[in-house]
Amino acid sequence: MNDGASPSIPQLLSPQNATDLFHSVDAFLFDCDGVIWKGDKLIDGVPHTLELLRSKGKKLIFVTNNSTKSRRQYAKKFHSLGIAVTEEEIFLSSFAAAMFLKVNEFPPEKKVYVIGEEGILDELELAGFIGLGGPVGAVVVGLDQYINYYKLQYATLCIRENPGCLFVATNRDAVGHMTDLQEWPGAGCMVAAVCGSTQKEPIVVGKPSTFMMDFLLKKYQISTSRMCMVGDRLDTDILFGKNAGCRTLLVLSGVTTQSTLQDPTNDILPEYYTSKISDLLNLLGP
Amino acid sequence: MNDGASPSIPQLLSPQNATDLFHSVDAFLFDCDGVIWKGDKLIDGVPHTLELLRSKGKKLIFVTNNSTKSRRQYAKKFHSLGIAVTEEEIFLSSFAAAMFLKVNEFPPEKKVYVIGEEGILDELELAGFIGLGGPVGAVVVGLDQYINYYKLQYATLCIRENPGCLFVATNRDAVGHMTDLQEWPGAGCMVAAVCGSTQKEPIVVGKPSTFMMDFLLKKYQISTSRMCMVGDRLDTDILFGKNAGCRTLLVLSGVTTQSTLQDPTNDILPEYYTSKISDLLNLLGP
Repeated sequence: MNDGASPSIPQLLSPQNATDLFHSVDAFLFDCDGVIWKGDKLIDGVPHTLELLRSKGKKLIFVTNNSTKSRRQYAKKFHSLGIAVTEEEIFLSSFAAAMFLKVNEFPPEKKVYVIGEEGILDELELAGFIGLGGPVGAVVVGLDQYINYYKLQYATLCIRENPGCLFVATNRDAVGHMTDLQEWPGAGCMVAAVCGSTQKEPIVVGKPSTFMMDFLLKKYQISTSRMCMVGDRLDTDILFGKNAGCRTLLVLSGVTTQSTLQDPTNDILPEYYTSKISDLLNLLGP
Repeated sequence: MNDGASPSIPQLLSPQNATDLFHSVDAFLFDCDGVIWKGDKLIDGVPHTLELLRSKGKKLIFVTNNSTKSRRQYAKKFHSLGIAVTEEEIFLSSFAAAMFLKVNEFPPEKKVYVIGEEGILDELELAGFIGLGGPVGAVVVGLDQYINYYKLQYATLCIRENPGCLFVATNRDAVGHMTDLQEWPGAGCMVAAVCGSTQKEPIVVGKPSTFMMDFLLKKYQISTSRMCMVGDRLDTDILFGKNAGCRTLLVLSGVTTQSTLQDPTNDILPEYYTSKISDLLNLLGP
């Protein structure tokens, strides 16, 4: 966890503490939606900020609850926006779901029923699991724009009636920016629907669960105390960072407003906050 | 509430206590699915049981969380199965949703967005509310076999972004018998989906909420202590009966098994239980 000296009240990022943070971490973990882009639009100053951090030797890691895309598709999205990111730097909740089954030695002869989109099916296939047909031993639920009653019914039957059937949620984000104009229901909507009909709770593998951290640590030999999680959501990104023992920086470029952060009912407090990641450019100086 | 002499352990219905119960109540409140029928099939002995109760002067009232039908459609279903029931004897959660808006003086110029089927739209129209288009001031969610992402999105936007928008759930039943062969997700599935994306809790108007009891009491001048709620679900029917201060009889012809009833984790205990309502025929004698 954070060192004892961390103040409990979030500090606005300043030239002084930005420089301190910069020197005390080796890796920045970025959420994407609301931090790097909104919908299909890059947030102001992002490419330069990432370039600066890379040029100073910082590792950049992208940890997202997106489940609709595979790592390959996500890397393509970065490239299409002019940012060079490799598949290895991306940790998606679709990948986390596949890895969850893998580390739990899910038998390859059993099938996985998916409420979700291509990303989950792709990552399951890459991990050697079959996503359709046959006896179902696991149901994976993520964001699904094509949700319908029959998918909900099949998932419900599998979970209620197949003994030992796993119920895995990629994440429980309430809403997300499918477009940059308005919020759309997130995976939390489909996951809640299946909870409602099965009256069971899922295993969540995306943020704020630290399940993905194990895979990330295998690739990067960096102590979590020298990582900084940068995100726009308190209940996923910042909680994930705190759960994992990382430094935390909230950006106000996504779903969280300053008044939500400072509301007395909010008990998820980041170490720092700022309006957007490119503030680092100015604060860190040349 | 029940009189202090009621034993806390559910009693199997016997000739003795069935006769006692029969004489101490003036009205039987029946859940339908799992009690009167399963899917489209009448449960064994139902018509004779209802005839016997009517011939002895008991009021028969049908209190159901079904939201897909209006009272008119529901009366038709009874008739098609050879049972004479009037619309006035039927209390549906679709009707309850319309009445909820009425008693809360919902302004007629505001629109109601419905995730649900014809029953809700019909009952809203009968109560003078408009179910589509215009500024939305209430979202009513019931069972919807045609649920899709855009319905969820619209409901989510209305609830999150229209100040004061009501979120009304007809009921939260996890599953129901759409067919008599297997269980299908109930309104609880769609309601949970909207809770998941809005992170708000609905006002529930169906069982176990006693909202419907006010309307029922207006029609029938009977004290709730002289009513017996007969149902197959613990968390809706029996809880409703107990919340309203009725006598309670659980039938095992629907979703609840004897082992669920007697499981130590179950704390919703009916006063009596029996396998099906027609047991009354034999127990009460000629």
